[in-house]
Amino acid sequence: MAKANAFYAQSGGVTAVINATACGVIETARKHKDKIGKLYAGRDGIIGALTEDLIDTSKEPASAIAKLRHTPGGAFGSCRYKLKSIEDNRAQYERLIEVFRAHNIRYFFYNGGGDSQDTSHKVSQIADALGYPIVCVGVPKTVDNDLPITDACPGFGSVAKYVAVSTKEAALDVRSMARTSTKVFILEVMGRHAGWIAAAGGLAGDQPGDAPHVILFPEIAFDKAAFLKKVSDSVKKSGFCVIVASEGVRDASGQFLAESGLKDAFGHAQLGGVAPRLAEMVKGELGLKYHWAVADYLQRAARHIASKMDVQQAYALGKAAVELALKGHNAVMPVIVRKSDKPYKWTIGHAKLSDVANVEKKVPRNYITKDGFGITETCRKYLQPLIQGEDYPPYKNGVPVYVTLKNVAVPKKLKTKFDI
Amino acid sequence: MAKANAFYAQSGGVTAVINATACGVIETARKHKDKIGKLYAGRDGIIGALTEDLIDTSKEPASAIAKLRHTPGGAFGSCRYKLKSIEDNRAQYERLIEVFRAHNIRYFFYNGGGDSQDTSHKVSQIADALGYPIVCVGVPKTVDNDLPITDACPGFGSVAKYVAVSTKEAALDVRSMARTSTKVFILEVMGRHAGWIAAAGGLAGDQPGDAPHVILFPEIAFDKAAFLKKVSDSVKKSGFCVIVASEGVRDASGQFLAESGLKDAFGHAQLGGVAPRLAEMVKGELGLKYHWAVADYLQRAARHIASKMDVQQAYALGKAAVELALKGHNAVMPVIVRKSDKPYKWTIGHAKLSDVANVEKKVPRNYITKDGFGITETCRKYLQPLIQGEDYPPYKNGVPVYVTLKNVAVPKKLKTKFDI
Repeated sequence: MAKANAFYAQSGGVTAVINATACGVIETARKHKDKIGKLYAGRDGIIGALTEDLIDTSKEPASAIAKLRHTPGGAFGSCRYKLKSIEDNRAQYERLIEVFRAHNIRYFFYNGGGDSQDTSHKVSQIADALGYPIVCVGVPKTVDNDLPITDACPGFGSVAKYVAVSTKEAALDVRSMARTSTKVFILEVMGRHAGWIAAAGGLAGDQPGDAPHVILFPEIAFDKAAFLKKVSDSVKKSGFCVIVASEGVRDASGQFLAESGLKDAFGHAQLGGVAPRLAEMVKGELGLKYHWAVADYLQRAARHIASKMDVQQAYALGKAAVELALKGHNAVMPVIVRKSDKPYKWTIGHAKLSDVANVEKKVPRNYITKDGFGITETCRKYLQPLIQGEDYPPYKNGVPVYVTLKNVAVPKKLKTKFDI
Repeated sequence: MAKANAFYAQSGGVTAVINATACGVIETARKHKDKIGKLYAGRDGIIGALTEDLIDTSKEPASAIAKLRHTPGGAFGSCRYKLKSIEDNRAQYERLIEVFRAHNIRYFFYNGGGDSQDTSHKVSQIADALGYPIVCVGVPKTVDNDLPITDACPGFGSVAKYVAVSTKEAALDVRSMARTSTKVFILEVMGRHAGWIAAAGGLAGDQPGDAPHVILFPEIAFDKAAFLKKVSDSVKKSGFCVIVASEGVRDASGQFLAESGLKDAFGHAQLGGVAPRLAEMVKGELGLKYHWAVADYLQRAARHIASKMDVQQAYALGKAAVELALKGHNAVMPVIVRKSDKPYKWTIGHAKLSDVANVEKKVPRNYITKDGFGITETCRKYLQPLIQGEDYPPYKNGVPVYVTLKNVAVPKKLKTKFDI
């Protein structure tokens, strides 16, 4: 019988280091050729499996795979596509089995966040529910850092570093301009439900009065009066005010600030932007000159300023996923286990997918200062190690050299198609 | 008689490398202690001179001054404050002379862009017009790269590198997501009148079809239909579309896109943002999912990804300014003279302030592709050397170590005050 093959796919929003995890998966699989035949990647995540659109990673030389470690984005394409339960859409799972069987796929590695681990968990059930033996291991990834159990989620440390560095730099700019020009600067960052990324802005400074002066978390109901007072006080005290705002800031009624009633000339709801909304308040109520930035994809793609710790953990988790599978662990996800804060020591453990799927880890209240606008020492102690170290990519002509794989398709074996 | 002192100030929007220029000025002045006594910096630009708010840079150890080379923002504070002509506000100039005389200031170095060189030029006239002998040298700086004569403006190369790198990284992200999610990504960059920064986005790719697929310049009247067709074509061809848009994009009638009629729920004009405006078009007319980012201050403060070439030129121009002054050149500005493109060779020359003040160098039409949405090889040949090389700052605890100077005030000698 032919050796069992493996399937790997990337899911959800991509990060600066998801390819470092892919690198860990592929390099480790290649070291176990006695047990794993080919490693196929799904083109655009689970969709690649459903549509039998598989990529043969064995066509890539080791040198190209090694470059994944420093290349942002998702090398095989990602997707936002959540499987329904087996009861609700049995046909999807039967299709997966059809494809897996056709290509002798017996290992399933799914690299993603909470929704994706829900998918991993559902796929892990097909062995029992539908009688197709497959070892299913989730691999953590999310800039939101909201997966439970694991100390950190790969992708987060690099966004955290980007936000801390950018906040520090922009603060020096605003401080220079404040006398006659901009007094308030607002940086909008990702994090719709959890404020981990906004919290990372707090690492920009470490002395009282250092920027950022205000952090807005989704976990804290937005209080306009308190916010404006804090901004005004900062400007009076420091001459300027730097604000890091999570995109997910919402008021006490739960309404997102970014959706609060902006209309264009035609009466259409104006889409997005907590930063411009806050800027408008600052201008309208305090009369202060402002600038605002929305980092958006730049923050999660910024491999040029990736955290070395994050890159290391991303790779280690990919490696661990394959090793767990080879040891016969099914329906699990490798996790980072923190052993100590200072020096930061960590090891790899694993959690059950059933404990991971659809659980959101938010910023605990004791990580946020009493007034709701800053981070505590406890939070700093947690975050600090995650942004440690720089891991610069190589450059040519002034820009980083990132790899684009050939992504050679595996010849299809099935006559049937599947509409997604 | 006491040795002549010198005055240095930073003006206008600050950059990632304006302090590298300050470093060049200060270190060079310190090497000529036989001719220059103290180097005073104006706190918040020319305002520091008008209000007799001078900083004694001799109080800073050499180690702190050396760190200016890798510290973004304006170490002494900057200002947006344009002097009127001598005829229109003689009192301002008499006040400058009063302060200069009190502190025996005979050298004036003013570090800024077009408006600031206009100020330098006016100050250079006081020797003749008001009988106070002073040597006045402008020092170029502007991320907008719109000063004439000089091959490049310090600050631009680093923003250019930031934009090229960020565009390249975000493009990898969008490409990964395009199948089921975001298909269009818009990055808004600075450049209200000149499209140099937007043009730099073009360095993200060097193969046909590479991102960015669309660049929007202030120099090209925005044509909505042509824009939407280009976006739609890119998505059809590549699966996604990356757009780099200058904040200064305007339509054929000259109206800025960012000011075109967004209103909030209360009917107030919604402020700014070309990117959200374009996103709205893309969604409304093409029905494509988008993301947008506004880099704002992040781009010009991003010392962590500064261009090594830019840092070198910034320093060299600061050094040259002092050397020109010591040679007796008055009313001039040192400039970068390009000797060859490949390899890039340059030297320092100088231009008359009267030829520099208030002249804006825009992107020439032959630097922009015929369709108006990209850069030509001629443009690439010009831009490429300016983003060469990396010049990383030192890090501690995961963030760069930037210096904050003591900025010790020079004791005031005048009884009089001056309101700005």
